[in-house]
Amino acid sequence: MTADDSDAGTGAGRGLGSGASTPPAELRPEQARALFRRGTRMTTSGYCAGYAQANLIAVPRDLAYEVLLFTQRNAKACPVLDVTEPGDTRASIFAGDLRTDLPAYRVYANGVLVAEPDDVRDVWRRDLVSFLIGCSFTFEVPMLRAGIPLRHLETGGNVAMYRTDRRCRPAGRLRGPLVVSMRPIPADRVADAVRISSRYPAVHGAPVHVGDPAALGIADLDRPDFGEPVEVRAGEIPVFWACGVTPQAAIMASAPEFAISHAPGHMAITDARDTDYQVP
Amino acid sequence: MTADDSDAGTGAGRGLGSGASTPPAELRPEQARALFRRGTRMTTSGYCAGYAQANLIAVPRDLAYEVLLFTQRNAKACPVLDVTEPGDTRASIFAGDLRTDLPAYRVYANGVLVAEPDDVRDVWRRDLVSFLIGCSFTFEVPMLRAGIPLRHLETGGNVAMYRTDRRCRPAGRLRGPLVVSMRPIPADRVADAVRISSRYPAVHGAPVHVGDPAALGIADLDRPDFGEPVEVRAGEIPVFWACGVTPQAAIMASAPEFAISHAPGHMAITDARDTDYQVP
Repeated sequence: MTADDSDAGTGAGRGLGSGASTPPAELRPEQARALFRRGTRMTTSGYCAGYAQANLIAVPRDLAYEVLLFTQRNAKACPVLDVTEPGDTRASIFAGDLRTDLPAYRVYANGVLVAEPDDVRDVWRRDLVSFLIGCSFTFEVPMLRAGIPLRHLETGGNVAMYRTDRRCRPAGRLRGPLVVSMRPIPADRVADAVRISSRYPAVHGAPVHVGDPAALGIADLDRPDFGEPVEVRAGEIPVFWACGVTPQAAIMASAPEFAISHAPGHMAITDARDTDYQVP
Repeated sequence: MTADDSDAGTGAGRGLGSGASTPPAELRPEQARALFRRGTRMTTSGYCAGYAQANLIAVPRDLAYEVLLFTQRNAKACPVLDVTEPGDTRASIFAGDLRTDLPAYRVYANGVLVAEPDDVRDVWRRDLVSFLIGCSFTFEVPMLRAGIPLRHLETGGNVAMYRTDRRCRPAGRLRGPLVVSMRPIPADRVADAVRISSRYPAVHGAPVHVGDPAALGIADLDRPDFGEPVEVRAGEIPVFWACGVTPQAAIMASAPEFAISHAPGHMAITDARDTDYQVP
């Protein structure tokens, strides 16, 4: 657990009326968003069971077509749940304020990470189009219900995410690597993890890879590019899902003038139900 | 069967080497495309079993973001399978020539249908971005294999398509009604038709409506807005699927300067397998 996760045990409901002392999993989306708006800064994994979580990428209108095309061409990593009008701070599936209601943001200038604030009102622009992209945290609840252990939830930390050597299909100025999240799964539950996650294609669906990290060009599982390292124990297999941090990796690789995103693992908690994205 | 379907029995493989006398369902995509390139003009329903078929909408680059956003916001009707670079005449899933290899096209100027040629090379523009959108013909083969009768295939005609009173979610200048295709399904097979089509979300998936056409604002099933009327017999239920003609209805309603599409029912036969779009 990192220092910025220190609110996890004691502060989750701090000063929030009906949310006070409510376990994070039982918070309603508007309660969790109010916590984050007031400054709680931690990974949203495990928050608001039953609600879809989303990656945020906000870019100037003149880059919006390329982002949308990039998501279409790399839909496994970038399943779009919603797109705003330029300058809008709400989305159809997110009744909060996109500038304040995520626990942490990243601000990119010319592809360089220049700030990681918990509020982006001061750098918000009226030409920003916000994309909400499905997040694998959404299928963690059904996996937990099926009895599949998820270590980063047990330890209260963030998931481990890695740049891979797989190239995304470019779109206009945008190119970059596929980013994946990794969860260690007991060998006898890998099939169940595949089966359950595959029912949620809009939040990355089935894994892109099971097993050897080297096959994805990942040299050292203990050194993730985003999030926190997660121990893989004997009898467990590292399982890799396409990750909605992929657009951020494209921003870093392609260096457009300006972009705002969520901080990896610190998601937008939407008002959409995970079941809205479930297929038979 | 309409006059332009007269090639159905005798001409399907005319002069095409290995395709000669091959039943349409058994043609490979490049064989079917060669037929259409030479002038065969008929609905592609029943062609190239096992291969995905696609709707075409090609618009100038300056409208492309709005079309792509419209498809994202109306994904049930407009599931995007591929998007080309401006001016490209091939797509990643379509190795033919988008200007010649569909059986028939529609050309729109200011929202008005101005021509229905079988070749659009003379009106093609270097700024056109082509969108290939999933088509419900793709799941007809699995429905047939399950023993569900499809009358328009039995009669050799086109499917019946209707404008509904359901509004699509607008995107920029684009707005318009949801268009649906209708198939009469025996009452005891409706559940199977739902179950099978729901496994293909990228080609419209499950029906949007089962039963009373009036609930969709359809006054008379015998007068479809696109395609041909299909008889609904005693013991059958009209079942309605979202249709990839929806972008054409948006072009007609929104009147952008220029667009090219396929003629309804006269699809782009892709090189992608229907199983590529199947979910568990």
